[in-house]
Amino acid sequence: MTSDQLSTTFAALADPTRRAILARLLLGECSVGELAEPFEMSMPAVSKHLRVLERAGLIAQRRDAQWRRCRIKAGPLKEVSDWTERYRQIWEERLDRLDEYVQQLKVKVKVKEKKTHGRK
Amino acid sequence: MTSDQLSTTFAALADPTRRAILARLLLGECSVGELAEPFEMSMPAVSKHLRVLERAGLIAQRRDAQWRRCRIKAGPLKEVSDWTERYRQIWEERLDRLDEYVQQLKVKVKVKEKKTHGRK
Repeated sequence: MTSDQLSTTFAALADPTRRAILARLLLGECSVGELAEPFEMSMPAVSKHLRVLERAGLIAQRRDAQWRRCRIKAGPLKEVSDWTERYRQIWEERLDRLDEYVQQLKVKVKVKEKKTHGRK
Repeated sequence: MTSDQLSTTFAALADPTRRAILARLLLGECSVGELAEPFEMSMPAVSKHLRVLERAGLIAQRRDAQWRRCRIKAGPLKEVSDWTERYRQIWEERLDRLDEYVQQLKVKVKVKEKKTHGRK
């Protein structure tokens, strides 16, 4: 694994359980036990996922009496969003071209309808 | 590796060479040889990266006489962008709070300046 931040972030996000943990943390800080609940997963398995997320800077953990509590950190997600922005032009251009094509099809269908109507 | 599309996309993006290849393809379609040039990499090594990108649906390859030509595909990148959007509120809220804090600091500095000025 490379050590650059964006690669570490993408690698951490390449797992549905870790993305589900982030989605849960979007609702607010919670304990590791609460996070583990919906996944029917052992605590060590959840802890392993949390360590990957923490190393990528996507979450922070803190001690609260006997509990470990987790919260989401936005920095790396903003970096991913900024990175995808430079590719936005591609899908927008392609959607524009698709829209143009659909408009042309509509015109063709109308012309055909007029011809069919004219023949009656 | 999991088989869901988003995980496959994130895994493919978790490598600086593959992201550099996508950045090059943003300028337009080009041959595998042209792609390999700036990386000082063997053709098999580049081909391996291209296969990972192709499996993730991030590029398409086509034969053009004796050349293989590659182009970028936007679909999976739009999916990544859509996924990050739901987290935008977090970094925007945090930037708002930071801005609020800076405004409060400014007011405090002004009050202090007035007091110091008053004492002269």
